[in-house]
Amino acid sequence: MPKAPVDLLLYHVTDAPLSATRGLVETVLAAVRGGATLIQLRDPEAKAGKLVEQGRALMAALAPSGVPLIVNDRPDVALAIGAAGVHVGQGDLPAATARLILGPDAVIGLSIDHPDQMAHVPWDMVDHLGVGPVMSRGVKPDAAEPMGLDGLRLCVRATQKPIVAIGGIGPGHARACIAAGADGVAVVAAIAGAPDPEAAARALRREADGALAERRASSAQ
Amino acid sequence: MPKAPVDLLLYHVTDAPLSATRGLVETVLAAVRGGATLIQLRDPEAKAGKLVEQGRALMAALAPSGVPLIVNDRPDVALAIGAAGVHVGQGDLPAATARLILGPDAVIGLSIDHPDQMAHVPWDMVDHLGVGPVMSRGVKPDAAEPMGLDGLRLCVRATQKPIVAIGGIGPGHARACIAAGADGVAVVAAIAGAPDPEAAARALRREADGALAERRASSAQ
Repeated sequence: MPKAPVDLLLYHVTDAPLSATRGLVETVLAAVRGGATLIQLRDPEAKAGKLVEQGRALMAALAPSGVPLIVNDRPDVALAIGAAGVHVGQGDLPAATARLILGPDAVIGLSIDHPDQMAHVPWDMVDHLGVGPVMSRGVKPDAAEPMGLDGLRLCVRATQKPIVAIGGIGPGHARACIAAGADGVAVVAAIAGAPDPEAAARALRREADGALAERRASSAQ
Repeated sequence: MPKAPVDLLLYHVTDAPLSATRGLVETVLAAVRGGATLIQLRDPEAKAGKLVEQGRALMAALAPSGVPLIVNDRPDVALAIGAAGVHVGQGDLPAATARLILGPDAVIGLSIDHPDQMAHVPWDMVDHLGVGPVMSRGVKPDAAEPMGLDGLRLCVRATQKPIVAIGGIGPGHARACIAAGADGVAVVAAIAGAPDPEAAARALRREADGALAERRASSAQ
């Protein structure tokens, strides 16, 4: 029986500086109350011990909602905290090693920074792709050149795997990304940096729900 | 049958800036020619993909010598490259998680920054301890206050596990550390930063061999 896929519709990726004042757990819970369907713990500056501590706090906080947690870059940390899976970038650990550590039931996401990388995806190892930056580099100053909606469309056409769009995505972008074929949007600053993260998540979720309904109606015609 | 312990006598820990000119692999091979018994790949600034690449190059280069490679902080990288094991610090992944990932045959070293930490070692999970900084902070500006030879002696008395002394150890220190009960010395800059790493390693190895022979002769009396 294939494992149940995670829902990529509104994927909140954490950011330590942006959530420092409000607190990481409180920011994530606000995102979930607003409709986030998936959370990624991302803190490239943190040592593994701190990631384990934060990850355990998030796992406990998320349990009542059933929203899964994915850990950026470190399958060892994901294993330590019992997270749903890991997200690896192009410079991170190979997806095959992440699969070896986490096993067949884990969710493994892979970043695609450029449509050319679609030719080198280890398809049997990954469950979904994070494609971007689509709009702008967002909170990642060293990210690749934004590929725009055209780049996103190229990636969507190259696979049947679920795709989440990422990179500078804020209000008004979710509709375009989902219309372009993405299964959802991954959002950092538009939630964690908003004055009211719950309201920001709710508005993005409404936009994403609407775009998905439109796309389904359009493809049913 | 218990696994064969690694030889901690002269443990070279790599340093990316110090070995940049000569090259990582060439610096490590020079250390091995000079008598290094164990190598640790340490590059806290590198992404996991780069660590895997460097680790694979080191594994291939070290194979003829039989000198084992240990990876700092990341059991996932150690698994990816088939390294002998991992070294974890106090803020890193718990040793139990490293053991879960790498299995019973892997070598797991744990850093002890202060003698008080000897009361909290997960003894059944670790194979040896890296105790320090003993002499000075060495290449780690954010390391703990040096514990000196007195601190090292306190740690040695608290366990029968093998201990390697680390932290600012250069020529003339190996004898004192081994006389204090360490099974060897871990060295970064005194090898990688030396004008002739092979000669530097050879001098340290001679000093360590002599100190070990003296200690054994003294305890046999």
